[in-house]
Amino acid sequence: MLTFPVIAVNEAKTKYLFDNRFGTGQSTLDGILRATDILIAGKKFVVCGYGWCGKGIASRAKGMGAQVIVTEVDPMRALEAVMDGFEVMPINEAAKEGDIFVTATGDLNVIDKKSLTKMKSGAFLANAGHFDCEINLEHLALISKKVTQVNEHVREYTTKTNKKLLLIAEGRLVNLGAATGHPASVMDLSFANQALSIEYIMKNHSKLSSQVYDVPLNIDNAIAKLKLSAMKIKIDKLTEEQKKYLNSWE
Amino acid sequence: MLTFPVIAVNEAKTKYLFDNRFGTGQSTLDGILRATDILIAGKKFVVCGYGWCGKGIASRAKGMGAQVIVTEVDPMRALEAVMDGFEVMPINEAAKEGDIFVTATGDLNVIDKKSLTKMKSGAFLANAGHFDCEINLEHLALISKKVTQVNEHVREYTTKTNKKLLLIAEGRLVNLGAATGHPASVMDLSFANQALSIEYIMKNHSKLSSQVYDVPLNIDNAIAKLKLSAMKIKIDKLTEEQKKYLNSWE
Amino acid sequence: MLTFPVIAVNEAKTKYLFDNRFGTGQSTLDGILRATDILIAGKKFVVCGYGWCGKGIASRAKGMGAQVIVTEVDPMRALEAVMDGFEVMPINEAAKEGDIFVTATGDLNVIDKKSLTKMKSGAFLANAGHFDCEINLEHLALISKKVTQVNEHVREYTTKTNKKLLLIAEGRLVNLGAATGHPASVMDLSFANQALSIEYIMKNHSKLSSQVYDVPLNIDNAIAKLKLSAMKIKIDKLTEEQKKYLNSWE
Amino acid sequence: MLTFPVIAVNEAKTKYLFDNRFGTGQSTLDGILRATDILIAGKKFVVCGYGWCGKGIASRAKGMGAQVIVTEVDPMRALEAVMDGFEVMPINEAAKEGDIFVTATGDLNVIDKKSLTKMKSGAFLANAGHFDCEINLEHLALISKKVTQVNEHVREYTTKTNKKLLLIAEGRLVNLGAATGHPASVMDLSFANQALSIEYIMKNHSKLSSQVYDVPLNIDNAIAKLKLSAMKIKIDKLTEEQKKYLNSWE
Repeated sequence: MLTFPVIAVNEAKTKYLFDNRFGTGQSTLDGILRATDILIAGKKFVVCGYGWCGKGIASRAKGMGAQVIVTEVDPMRALEAVMDGFEVMPINEAAKEGDIFVTATGDLNVIDKKSLTKMKSGAFLANAGHFDCEINLEHLALISKKVTQVNEHVREYTTKTNKKLLLIAEGRLVNLGAATGHPASVMDLSFANQALSIEYIMKNHSKLSSQVYDVPLNIDNAIAKLKLSAMKIKIDKLTEEQKKYLNSWE
Repeated sequence: MLTFPVIAVNEAKTKYLFDNRFGTGQSTLDGILRATDILIAGKKFVVCGYGWCGKGIASRAKGMGAQVIVTEVDPMRALEAVMDGFEVMPINEAAKEGDIFVTATGDLNVIDKKSLTKMKSGAFLANAGHFDCEINLEHLALISKKVTQVNEHVREYTTKTNKKLLLIAEGRLVNLGAATGHPASVMDLSFANQALSIEYIMKNHSKLSSQVYDVPLNIDNAIAKLKLSAMKIKIDKLTEEQKKYLNSWE
Repeated sequence: MLTFPVIAVNEAKTKYLFDNRFGTGQSTLDGILRATDILIAGKKFVVCGYGWCGKGIASRAKGMGAQVIVTEVDPMRALEAVMDGFEVMPINEAAKEGDIFVTATGDLNVIDKKSLTKMKSGAFLANAGHFDCEINLEHLALISKKVTQVNEHVREYTTKTNKKLLLIAEGRLVNLGAATGHPASVMDLSFANQALSIEYIMKNHSKLSSQVYDVPLNIDNAIAKLKLSAMKIKIDKLTEEQKKYLNSWE
Repeated sequence: MLTFPVIAVNEAKTKYLFDNRFGTGQSTLDGILRATDILIAGKKFVVCGYGWCGKGIASRAKGMGAQVIVTEVDPMRALEAVMDGFEVMPINEAAKEGDIFVTATGDLNVIDKKSLTKMKSGAFLANAGHFDCEINLEHLALISKKVTQVNEHVREYTTKTNKKLLLIAEGRLVNLGAATGHPASVMDLSFANQALSIEYIMKNHSKLSSQVYDVPLNIDNAIAKLKLSAMKIKIDKLTEEQKKYLNSWE
């Protein structure tokens, strides 16, 4: 039970629309490149999960010339992935096709026993979700007869059937494990949410109860405004006439 | 005051994530092509408003090779447009640059007096928002000395300063005015929401009060599932182990 | 045997780099939309041939949200398609996957008997190559028990196995058959090549022999320059220092 | 004067269509990320030169969410950049807009005195062309009052007007200086050209004269075929009927 008010920064738009998508998207690709030096163009790149992180990763992999395959359990997200131009299929089908696999689901054993068995020799495995449980590493070890650390960030598993599966960053967050995480120019948005939410609690705690609050909308919007201003980007303002017109619809 | 229960279909994910984005996106470009036969590649294409419709239009215009400029009044959407790779500027700046302008805001006089004055001769004007008030047509007429209907869908305004501004589909919805509206293969999602929501009200009206309801989540998800199935696309299911893991986080 | 000098306009860069790619690319999609009103997003779109026309069509289909599959006989072009992010496979494999097929090869029976047999019911067939022989229409008729003209541009073939295959524009050039061909703003480049080449022959015929010439490079470049200037786009000029540096490498 | 036959590998299609475009494209972005950790999305990214390298860099920068501006001296390439959806302007205009500048021209002082003066504080400078003369580094030093090495790969120049300009990898090739150069999976094509060309000379030197030859077309094509085969990608073959048809056009 909470004994003080809490603001859930992760639900702010200036957080999840940007950090999760553009931050994770870029830094995941960055981590894979630093770890492997492989050419992304022409590769089949499987993204497990099409939440904001998955969307970002899929978009950046496509932007680097990959053919992206998305796997999902949620029909809404799966349909969105299809309409965004990606191929969608079950992970056990994708397992046979992929050259690179990235998990971004927040769940466990997303790449599980069956999938590991079906993969092509030479496939790369990475995780951009929460923990190192998205790929069934225990099973990967179990089916392998030899494990070699081929460079700082890549571990090669030679399976008993003589396939080589290449695990990046031990299955931990690949952007932190093999690169330097999110760029400062997107973390600024997330940190601004934290700082301004703390300030908000300090100023308003007497009026708040011990529960979880969203980031106040005016803080969320103020951060977007500050960021645009820092980037020297100007936007329009509603005229009085326009405000009146919009209000006439309420 | 409502005297019966209502379901607001427009807020269903299978409606606004698809119809507004992919339907309006494609059909707006389609309408412009049918009306004008111009090459989109290499043109500066200004999209006013970066809601779901604006996002769809911007994405499709980019996909056809245009340089897209976005104008917005909302800082969050403006920032999203920037991160999506679009140039963002006030409409009065964009007015000087654009070859094609499309409004998608739901507001009035988004392209107003000042902007009309600043446009290049030969610029095309179209509306993909709600009504034919997004472009200030009255003012356009006022500053013109001659109006010619150059083809079924394009009206040429010759201004008193001898510029030619080309209005498509009388400033009415360009995808309906100059093309045939949204494709059936995206309207199916919207119509399914209507049909299943009506069925839901019929079956449950005794338990409902006279207010506006969202489309029930299970209907929304069921529609996504049906659509995937109609497209012969298979997705994954959570395993018992995964469900248990996810629940452990609640 | 030629009895007068000829200039082959089709080999000019300002012709094939633009007209074939951006003109055919856009107008092929335009033709398909006008004929069918289908949603391109989420569809599997098969492009047969990855020459300049095929490149343009593939790029525009991707830009509209399709998953593009390319078929080729030339390994160099096939490899280019792969690296450009497209899936490449033999036509008989693609036949089973595609929702829309477009031929752009200049050859005959590119979609042949076997492929026609393997297609999904509801598949659309169009040609953006030279003649109406790229799809084996004779065989299509042979395997069909019923042919219905469903609208001005689409003919539905019901096969003896009860599949429906939808032929657009009778297998003739889809951009001319169902739309209005290339936009003026790309044909200007092609016509400028014709006009300036004729002028060149008139002025220089005494020095020319009866053979096929390329468009003179300075004409080709002059057209690019004129087009940029018409679009009000300025570019850089080599400085004296830069010219000297470049020459030092010859 | 040559005293033995030479094959110019750089002109092979399996070299310049792939190595220069996909290799340099990816590794240039890779180098910039490793050196700077900046977010590419939303940045104005200026590419000087739209040859194969420039095309690759522009495409990858766009794929990472940047707004790309291209500068050129060649009208044909400039026009191609425009139609590919990029903004084209003179370097002295782009200088005022850019957040990141990459040169890929093979020329010197492409970013020269005037441009350096006009840049925004915080702009990044990198070179992906041949030598460290594409940016006028001498002048950059001259207008600076302080130079700090901020990390292994980035040098910060504080100008006398108090702007900060950030030079990556000393203006040397950024993909080699700050990353590991081209991926093996694209260099294989280039190395195959070298190896097979040497073999060709060994086997045929008695028939060759002391001049520069192109890579024989059958070697170039064979390499494309081998690469596809290594990627397990199958393509079509011309049928006898098709060959006959094509020959009938010669």
